[in-house]
Amino acid sequence: MQRIKLDLGGRSYNIIVGFDILPALGKTLKKLNIGTDAYIITNALIRRKFGAKLEDSLKGAGFTVRFKVVADTEKSKSIETAAGVIRDLALYDNKRRIFVIAFGGGVIGDLSGFVASIYKRGIPYVQVPTTLLAQVDSAIGGKTAVDLSEGKNLVGAIYQPRLVFSDCKFLSSLNPRQLRSGLAEVIKYAIIKDKSLFNYLFTNIKDILFCKRSALERIVLSCSSIKAKVVKQDEREERGIRTILNFGHTAGHAIEAAAGFTKYTHGEAIALGMLVACEISKMLELIDEPLAVKVEALISKAGLPTKIRAVKLERIISAHYRDKKFIGPRNKFVLIGAIGKVKIVTNVPLEVITESLKKKF
Amino acid sequence: MQRIKLDLGGRSYNIIVGFDILPALGKTLKKLNIGTDAYIITNALIRRKFGAKLEDSLKGAGFTVRFKVVADTEKSKSIETAAGVIRDLALYDNKRRIFVIAFGGGVIGDLSGFVASIYKRGIPYVQVPTTLLAQVDSAIGGKTAVDLSEGKNLVGAIYQPRLVFSDCKFLSSLNPRQLRSGLAEVIKYAIIKDKSLFNYLFTNIKDILFCKRSALERIVLSCSSIKAKVVKQDEREERGIRTILNFGHTAGHAIEAAAGFTKYTHGEAIALGMLVACEISKMLELIDEPLAVKVEALISKAGLPTKIRAVKLERIISAHYRDKKFIGPRNKFVLIGAIGKVKIVTNVPLEVITESLKKKF
Repeated sequence: MQRIKLDLGGRSYNIIVGFDILPALGKTLKKLNIGTDAYIITNALIRRKFGAKLEDSLKGAGFTVRFKVVADTEKSKSIETAAGVIRDLALYDNKRRIFVIAFGGGVIGDLSGFVASIYKRGIPYVQVPTTLLAQVDSAIGGKTAVDLSEGKNLVGAIYQPRLVFSDCKFLSSLNPRQLRSGLAEVIKYAIIKDKSLFNYLFTNIKDILFCKRSALERIVLSCSSIKAKVVKQDEREERGIRTILNFGHTAGHAIEAAAGFTKYTHGEAIALGMLVACEISKMLELIDEPLAVKVEALISKAGLPTKIRAVKLERIISAHYRDKKFIGPRNKFVLIGAIGKVKIVTNVPLEVITESLKKKF
Repeated sequence: MQRIKLDLGGRSYNIIVGFDILPALGKTLKKLNIGTDAYIITNALIRRKFGAKLEDSLKGAGFTVRFKVVADTEKSKSIETAAGVIRDLALYDNKRRIFVIAFGGGVIGDLSGFVASIYKRGIPYVQVPTTLLAQVDSAIGGKTAVDLSEGKNLVGAIYQPRLVFSDCKFLSSLNPRQLRSGLAEVIKYAIIKDKSLFNYLFTNIKDILFCKRSALERIVLSCSSIKAKVVKQDEREERGIRTILNFGHTAGHAIEAAAGFTKYTHGEAIALGMLVACEISKMLELIDEPLAVKVEALISKAGLPTKIRAVKLERIISAHYRDKKFIGPRNKFVLIGAIGKVKIVTNVPLEVITESLKKKF
């Protein structure tokens, strides 16, 4: 069980990483003086698989426990679902020391954090992420959100949890596609900030795909620590530092949107987006061919797509156009100059973007 | 046009008070670098009476303007209304520098602040309060909220505006009952913090009721300044300082709830609540009879009720019981020891509360 401190003054908290540490959650929370009544937001599968173990840990430490099961699809990230959860929470809230536990992946984490942020002007919450994506990325940093039909994550708050508790044992129960999806974000961290992690991934990717304990702990720890450093420096994404986490996300989001959010998982789209970003970096002569090849080799080893399929180029370009941050006089790309070295480049010409996309078909 | 600074570090802002200053709003906002597109949330009456004047001022300073009219009743303070407003806001938000103006009374202010706090994880907003209650109290301090059927203000955030702009000219168009309702909060500030304001009110109450310009400016300035000081010291209501603003509100809320939120306006219930608090203060020998009589005389001069009518004592007591902060071993009352001198007293015996309530029938 290892601990990373995310230092945000009065809003600081620990990220705890380990394997099969769920039984210790109750005691850990007890020390936080976080409340008396645990309101756990989760999905049906996680509830069935791990609910009893979580409940034992919490009750053993003297907490009361109530589960709220929501459907774990992007559709649950709505104001309506949030309102329904809050109504249920209010009914259970009779001892006045209630707190929320987000027990699931990114959707559960975003929704639960949002609920906690607006109920009674903010009650404490804890992230217990169960997917690789959530453990290395979405559970850390306090971004909470729900979607509108007008756009994803349009409604939300920056509201920090009191603890992130990442038990890598959960990851062995993920289906392989979910695990590989999370790996895309791990690869992202390696590319933007950590050459030694990149080399580790290159050599040990199989250990991760086979859910070897030491490999999972290694990557979750490294990525959590990078994310914590970035968030500490730019909590509210005002200083342009948190922006580097968007490596691969500009083109990635456009590909995801063009594919109607169904063909590709978020991680798969990000993998393709990173390849596009490398291609652009190459065309702008920031990196050379062998480096781009090496990134592509790692993404391929991870079982992630390296070619864009079944989405038309025009649709991706027009999805780009709809995202005003992306195309036109004011676009902004996170590119690389080497492994571990990010370059923010503005005003990348449309021809370069189109050409780079084409090469990935 | 006078200016009070509410000092909250990076979240500091000005409260501007004056008479017929609406034409200067556009220029004032321009200096704040707050955005380009004004999204104004208001009610039908305010829109009709003052919408054109506001629009002129904003367009004159180069802002685009869009009005969103909502029904100005407590029912509008719902998650559903907030979601509807946000959807409309998202449609209008195409230039990416949008901000919100809350143009109305307390309901509009609470709803608009909440909308601004959760749209895109927080966009700037400005309070342009049009009622006395909103100018002296709810527009200042960043408390935003909507209701659930489970309770009022259960959902919300502490999210500070970028400016509070109080034009006292609006107050002359209030109906007399609304004005008197706001006066209850003015009297509250005087009792808890400002003996000279108390004496001023005693002598000049008619000038206020007749909407004399100098009188309105005097009271809005004094109350805004008191509120600003209290919020500066205890923004998130964590240090027990903001609690003093609840003078009259403990019993007041119970009376309001017992009367089904219809018989009494908020201000009228608070007036009765202040009299109950004075009665308790007297029974606990914190103040003497003449002081209690003087407070009652001022409330009566203001045209506010001094006797509880058409609500049964038992209903008020049971509303108290439902509010766990109030009755039982842990109740907490804001009482007074003199004009301008607050005493927080815990564990007031139920007999004392009941006896004090009875005297006000």
